[in-house]
Amino acid sequence: MPSPGIAIDGERLWRSLMTLAEIGRTQKGGVGRLALTDLDREARDLFAGWCRDAGCTVTVDAIGNVIARRPGRDPSRAPVATGSHLDSQPLGGRFDGAYGVMAGLEVVRALNDAGIETAAPIEVIDWTDEEGARFAAGCIGSAVFAGIRPLEQALALTDADGKMLGDELRRIGYAGNAAPARPLAAYFEAHIEQGPILEKNAVPIGAVLGAQGQRCFMVTVTGVEGHAGTLPMTERRDAFVGAAKMAVALNELAFSYQPNPVITVGHVRVGPNSRNTIPGTTVFSIDSRHPDEAILQRMQSDMVCMIEGIADDIGLGIAIETVTISAPVHFDLSCVEAVREAAGTLGIPCQDIYSGAGHDACKVAAVAPTGMIFVPCEGGISHNEAENARPDDLAKGAAVLAAAMLARAG
Amino acid sequence: MPSPGIAIDGERLWRSLMTLAEIGRTQKGGVGRLALTDLDREARDLFAGWCRDAGCTVTVDAIGNVIARRPGRDPSRAPVATGSHLDSQPLGGRFDGAYGVMAGLEVVRALNDAGIETAAPIEVIDWTDEEGARFAAGCIGSAVFAGIRPLEQALALTDADGKMLGDELRRIGYAGNAAPARPLAAYFEAHIEQGPILEKNAVPIGAVLGAQGQRCFMVTVTGVEGHAGTLPMTERRDAFVGAAKMAVALNELAFSYQPNPVITVGHVRVGPNSRNTIPGTTVFSIDSRHPDEAILQRMQSDMVCMIEGIADDIGLGIAIETVTISAPVHFDLSCVEAVREAAGTLGIPCQDIYSGAGHDACKVAAVAPTGMIFVPCEGGISHNEAENARPDDLAKGAAVLAAAMLARAG
Repeated sequence: MPSPGIAIDGERLWRSLMTLAEIGRTQKGGVGRLALTDLDREARDLFAGWCRDAGCTVTVDAIGNVIARRPGRDPSRAPVATGSHLDSQPLGGRFDGAYGVMAGLEVVRALNDAGIETAAPIEVIDWTDEEGARFAAGCIGSAVFAGIRPLEQALALTDADGKMLGDELRRIGYAGNAAPARPLAAYFEAHIEQGPILEKNAVPIGAVLGAQGQRCFMVTVTGVEGHAGTLPMTERRDAFVGAAKMAVALNELAFSYQPNPVITVGHVRVGPNSRNTIPGTTVFSIDSRHPDEAILQRMQSDMVCMIEGIADDIGLGIAIETVTISAPVHFDLSCVEAVREAAGTLGIPCQDIYSGAGHDACKVAAVAPTGMIFVPCEGGISHNEAENARPDDLAKGAAVLAAAMLARAG
Repeated sequence: MPSPGIAIDGERLWRSLMTLAEIGRTQKGGVGRLALTDLDREARDLFAGWCRDAGCTVTVDAIGNVIARRPGRDPSRAPVATGSHLDSQPLGGRFDGAYGVMAGLEVVRALNDAGIETAAPIEVIDWTDEEGARFAAGCIGSAVFAGIRPLEQALALTDADGKMLGDELRRIGYAGNAAPARPLAAYFEAHIEQGPILEKNAVPIGAVLGAQGQRCFMVTVTGVEGHAGTLPMTERRDAFVGAAKMAVALNELAFSYQPNPVITVGHVRVGPNSRNTIPGTTVFSIDSRHPDEAILQRMQSDMVCMIEGIADDIGLGIAIETVTISAPVHFDLSCVEAVREAAGTLGIPCQDIYSGAGHDACKVAAVAPTGMIFVPCEGGISHNEAENARPDDLAKGAAVLAAAMLARAG
């Protein structure tokens, strides 16, 4: 790819991704590589080996984050880092996480090819267990790094078989000694969008402004069970009719704010769930997300008010339990600008975008200037074996990453 | 109860019901007496013994229906029959079924007390397995009697443990030889309403015009699964939002016909049913009932049209599977009139009503002039341990039953 930046080798990047994707390859061509399994070890070993081959030193910290460092001219400077994660969902794709790590490796290789020595060291990090698909939490390595989750508590997390995270780290040989917390001059993470916006707009680069805040609730609607044949419509207090009205109203509500939040009713449980019994109870989840904390708060008030109104109309009982409240993340403006500028210099179309999902970068942002680079993925599909991305877009993302990191590393 | 009819002993009726309710009594004071269990045998034995004590001959037919006959003056006349069932739901009440059988017994006892000999014989029948809670069908004894279900097929029905109905009949000593089909001059069944209408109207007797027809469907809504955080609202094809809109519209539809049908969405299954995934599929049931076949047909067309319209709007796939189509039952007009007249003569308020549930009488109606008498039950609650009815109402129902039967039996 001819560009004013350093020359990213898109084919090499693609080959690295495809070689990595063989580890835990699923029948449908996706990846199943749960954190701290033998497959994760294999992926870590491959990554660490490639980094050493590229002249990096590789260290592992106490939460198992793998840090490959390319030295800079000035060892006193904090490193400019990039990375993501090598673990996947049970039936995940080839690019979620893997792309950010391999893009970082490609930056190192491209710097080597170009014979460039940066002032600050460059680091490529594989954060431990981003997906949260095995232990009861996600973004574990980056959260410990950022001081958001205590190390000892993270090491004590157990999987469904009762295996402890710390033991599993030791078992696969990735329990290091170094304290996870270290200063970073900046952190940039490249990632597939996991949504359809860039593809729809035919824009290959998203300069990520931050991540949406999220508020999740479980709503229990209580009506009165009754015989589907004998209880007249006028006498019913049907919990599912109430829940259905709420779900429809929640969906409409999502279109009444600008920019649109997302509101999802993903989990529904009807009781007794029998064809000829009027539902006495319905439990459903609400997942609401928006980049603006004030709007999230207004949404919550509006949702509660609306749900209570519908319940009152039908004579239903309501209990609303808060499951998750997480604040929006706003990335460092200079890092966001560095991404925009890198794309601009390279002549690659770029748009601002918010992340709908959580990422390691959202944790790192708490302690270091952070930005993210999104590239399109096919149909917006992720967490799915069908996850796909175009080699050309991946190369463009790596080129922007390299340029942004170089601008910071001097 | 002073009345121009024969003197029903309301206290005796209540005592019979309460004695019977001890067989299979549940912790919460309901009844659990599944068909053809040892408890059912015990109830049958008690009933048969009481009938013999009251001067009846007791026979059992090949499907296990227990027939107690009080002879008439003219043995050539077909009997005027009444009855219901002694089996119950697993956690059922003391009156569903039991009341119709005990009311019939009380009619026989009252006729004895009054020294009345009827022209036609009087029969009280305990139909085998009305509830359908054990074998894969309900109203088995009455359906075989009416030629709606072949005897051999009924005997071959199996329960969840693989036990065959015919074997269970033999095991409890209730496999008779007589062919179930016989002519009846008329059949009247007394039953609790299992709905709230009579209680609400403070009317103790319902002259049942017939039973609603029922059409049940399973609807499969297919959308596109997606990430609850990253897929913008405008890009979603959320199967549950579609299903919720359909459920709300179905509920509204039920109010647009006169008289109101009942439409129930009782069973709902969301896939993958995960809080942070936009539902890709939703399967739900529709149970629709109305006494008028033409309206049932129009409702079905309207429902399909409405569901398809909503699916089209959102871009969802739809499959509608028909589960049950059962036509409305219209009871014999002279039998309905006999109930009204009996109530009128006795000075007991009476209103016309439709049955929302199925009953043995709905099967018998296919081969004999049939009517039903409903009495109120507390809160309309049935198929529940809390099922309750007032002794006074039960006595009034028995008095109307006696008068209607007498009018027919001469």
